[in-house]
Amino acid sequence: MGFSFLPKEEKFYDDFDNLSEKIVNAAKYFMVIVEKGDFGDESLMRMREHENQCDEITHEIMNKLNKTFITPFDREDIHSLAHELDSIVDIILTITNRMKIYKMSGQIDQYLVKFSDVIYRAVLEIAKSVNTLRDLKKSDLIHNYCIEVKQLENVGDQIRDIAMGELFNHNDIIHIMKWKEIYEHAENVIDQCEDVANIVSTIVVKQA
Amino acid sequence: MGFSFLPKEEKFYDDFDNLSEKIVNAAKYFMVIVEKGDFGDESLMRMREHENQCDEITHEIMNKLNKTFITPFDREDIHSLAHELDSIVDIILTITNRMKIYKMSGQIDQYLVKFSDVIYRAVLEIAKSVNTLRDLKKSDLIHNYCIEVKQLENVGDQIRDIAMGELFNHNDIIHIMKWKEIYEHAENVIDQCEDVANIVSTIVVKQA
Amino acid sequence: MGFSFLPKEEKFYDDFDNLSEKIVNAAKYFMVIVEKGDFGDESLMRMREHENQCDEITHEIMNKLNKTFITPFDREDIHSLAHELDSIVDIILTITNRMKIYKMSGQIDQYLVKFSDVIYRAVLEIAKSVNTLRDLKKSDLIHNYCIEVKQLENVGDQIRDIAMGELFNHNDIIHIMKWKEIYEHAENVIDQCEDVANIVSTIVVKQA
Repeated sequence: MGFSFLPKEEKFYDDFDNLSEKIVNAAKYFMVIVEKGDFGDESLMRMREHENQCDEITHEIMNKLNKTFITPFDREDIHSLAHELDSIVDIILTITNRMKIYKMSGQIDQYLVKFSDVIYRAVLEIAKSVNTLRDLKKSDLIHNYCIEVKQLENVGDQIRDIAMGELFNHNDIIHIMKWKEIYEHAENVIDQCEDVANIVSTIVVKQA
Repeated sequence: MGFSFLPKEEKFYDDFDNLSEKIVNAAKYFMVIVEKGDFGDESLMRMREHENQCDEITHEIMNKLNKTFITPFDREDIHSLAHELDSIVDIILTITNRMKIYKMSGQIDQYLVKFSDVIYRAVLEIAKSVNTLRDLKKSDLIHNYCIEVKQLENVGDQIRDIAMGELFNHNDIIHIMKWKEIYEHAENVIDQCEDVANIVSTIVVKQA
Repeated sequence: MGFSFLPKEEKFYDDFDNLSEKIVNAAKYFMVIVEKGDFGDESLMRMREHENQCDEITHEIMNKLNKTFITPFDREDIHSLAHELDSIVDIILTITNRMKIYKMSGQIDQYLVKFSDVIYRAVLEIAKSVNTLRDLKKSDLIHNYCIEVKQLENVGDQIRDIAMGELFNHNDIIHIMKWKEIYEHAENVIDQCEDVANIVSTIVVKQA
């Protein structure tokens, strides 16, 4: 009897692996368009596709959750882990969108390049921590990935501080306002990664 | 024995229905003053009354929670549902307040009109989902209301994108700064509705 | 047997008392530098020390949590209480940092002075509520501290409203932008205190 439940449990881990992979792809694509300063229709459309894929997997997880009796960890943690992971790509899409709307395409900004690199690295750690969830004996390993995310969050704060300090030397106030908002969103992506790391930590802590 | 508990449980549902209704009233009143561009003392005072009424019901729910042994769903979910519902009107009051403080009364803004409409519709879905909580057999229905809130959140994002894009064509930077903030708060109201929808979903998921 | 667990449980309360005390120290130091308008290297360095101390205690709590079987209240509440307390000082450090980066040292601002006073008072109430957690018979007392934090949050909102209204009369837009951000962060500190108060309330509610 217990046997029939196992595949279902496994499926949740697979779905989360799948979702993490899509988020890594989105973060990688973000890095590419930031390095080219390309925030035109094509980039926005492709980023929206990344976001849609994540939405779909998140929905799948939710549907499965409603139909599954036994879950590998608390139902509400599955719920919030899926939603908070999904939010990472939502904010990346927001930045891409805002860059287009504010007609900032063609601008290559060294700080946003640095941000996109830190975001990518944080998302990689997130993916590793999520991939390891199925093996809770490795809780120390998971713990380390989460600490790494927190350290990347500090790096993100430093980038933002330097970027903001320099930004205010600029003459064009509209330029300042737009970039200030972009930097804040970029920081939010990394904060969101930290939120995910906190949820992963909580899941590990609960099962200890 | 069990019988004597039921009325108490019912009371929680009644309180949440009551709170939702007050929030709908506040959102409706917000729509009226936004359409008239009336952010004077009278509007602010009446909006504050709406907010006070919600505060009172939220306090009542908390007091009842401290005195009740058996609750219809998890104590901490009652706690957070009440507080997050209450926050919807807090942010609506913040906007009204900010419009007054920034001396923006008399300005009718088509985007804020659209926002107030989406807010009203999101709050209606929230109210329906909360009203249906007492009948968890209708979890599909509740799920649909929550999905509707999420879709309205997307609509809100689109309004904000167009509004922001246009805003930066304006000449007066103070005007840009003030409206940027108002639009962000308007978007926050809808995000807050989505947070409530997520809590409602979690409650349904937990009881599945 | 049960006896051997007690010291461990007690240790959590001691750690939280310790963390609260450090936060009170940080808030007191913030009040001092705001009143002197001193946001130079020395102030930033010392505030960073305050923040590091809080980080260390938070880490200690997390480590202990991973090694302890019986906890005085839910593992996940210990987790989030520690992190949310820690965030109070994070935001205070952010303000100090931003004042330095934006070269605002030397400016004494009456509204920030008022904010720092309200922050200090909110943090004192937080500390009292945390200190009382070990004695859940005093849940009414804890409840009152939490209500006090919420009222201070309202006071903070009023300060921000007046400060923002006046700020927009200023001629220098860069000045407006910088101070707008500082005031928003100052308000966030108090919001963060309210978040902590909500967690404390939830812990009390759960154990009722």
